Amino acid sequence: MRLYDYSASGNCYKVRLLLAQLGLPYERVSVDIFGGDTLTDEFGRLNPARSTPVLVREGDSPLAESNAILLHLAEGTELLPAEPARRAQAYRWLFFEQADVIPAIAGLRFRLLTGRLEPDDPRARSRRAAGEQVLALLDEHLAGREFLVDAGYSVADISLYGYVHVAGDAGLALPPAVRAWIERVEARPGFMNDLEPYPANARPGAGRSIYDG
Amino acid sequence: MRLYDYSASGNCYKVRLLLAQLGLPYERVSVDIFGGDTLTDEFGRLNPARSTPVLVREGDSPLAESNAILLHLAEGTELLPAEPARRAQAYRWLFFEQADVIPAIAGLRFRLLTGRLEPDDPRARSRRAAGEQVLALLDEHLAGREFLVDAGYSVADISLYGYVHVAGDAGLALPPAVRAWIERVEARPGFMNDLEPYPANARPGAGRSIYDG
Repeated sequence: MRLYDYSASGNCYKVRLLLAQLGLPYERVSVDIFGGDTLTDEFGRLNPARSTPVLVREGDSPLAESNAILLHLAEGTELLPAEPARRAQAYRWLFFEQADVIPAIAGLRFRLLTGRLEPDDPRARSRRAAGEQVLALLDEHLAGREFLVDAGYSVADISLYGYVHVAGDAGLALPPAVRAWIERVEARPGFMNDLEPYPANARPGAGRSIYDG
Repeated sequence: MRLYDYSASGNCYKVRLLLAQLGLPYERVSVDIFGGDTLTDEFGRLNPARSTPVLVREGDSPLAESNAILLHLAEGTELLPAEPARRAQAYRWLFFEQADVIPAIAGLRFRLLTGRLEPDDPRARSRRAAGEQVLALLDEHLAGREFLVDAGYSVADISLYGYVHVAGDAGLALPPAVRAWIERVEARPGFMNDLEPYPANARPGAGRSIYDG
């Protein structure tokens, strides 16, 4: 299988982490988001939403959406609970990640690190308030729990770890139970972190991407 | 089972539609979002994110996130494909719905209908542009397809229908293949639509909710 992948994307890193922990071999196809690589007709055929990552397996339609890829690859492994109620809680955290964690934490971090927003801009303040709420919710949930789902370490932890562990880059303080959970995730067998910083062409006007114009 | 439910929420309507089509009995517990019902300690214990819907089944943890509830309830039915590649595409559309459809279409519609944004506000214009992109993507995908996933009508259609069918309220024009898909969804056995308009207390300052302050 091939993974269309951007090294500075937490959404892509989540998939690389799962692949590493499952020991699955794959071909990594680097996509330079800010170099215009997701704006080509070829990429549009893989994923009309022009987001990364995209998983391509022989004979199947290309699969977009990082959390859909996590669920697909983890099926039948201990990283996705089979028991319906616990599995449903894994789903819940994956949707919470896309609906709440991404806009607040990942969106704010991207805009601050690439010079799209100043920290005191009202739009940054509003995302920061949302990020603080997300982290407080996670802190309460993780106090007294090892991992997000009671069944144990799962794709829910992989997904949330992707951007929560770099929330400090967005000016957000990690509360104690979240810090302890991050350490537990990082202590899992096969853990690795190869998330890269945003390159120079990620700054506005320096590249060509869906974030311009 | 009990569904904590808000009658004017498309996310809640999605779950009611699935329950109707599966013929599952449930107790509906009305939550007045703008009357402060999601701000109580009791609701916070059900769902610390304070969003609706929430599904409660005896002996299980409360289940938040509309699309997690759809996946959980549809398991083992023809509305969620069992074949891994098709199932993965259902996941993909459910995550696309939360990541792209909700902020662009549902978020814009809510803000316009409740007087939080004027149509010519730059924030409304930027959401409208995103909404047009979402609808163009769906139009291209649905041209020549009956439903979102090749396996046939599924929870992906139910989820996307929730807010796409009212995109006109957000000043968005429904493209032809999307209009035809909406008609196909509405022709499915057991289809019903009881989504209600936002009530007067949804206007800013008229109620007390997570959308104030």
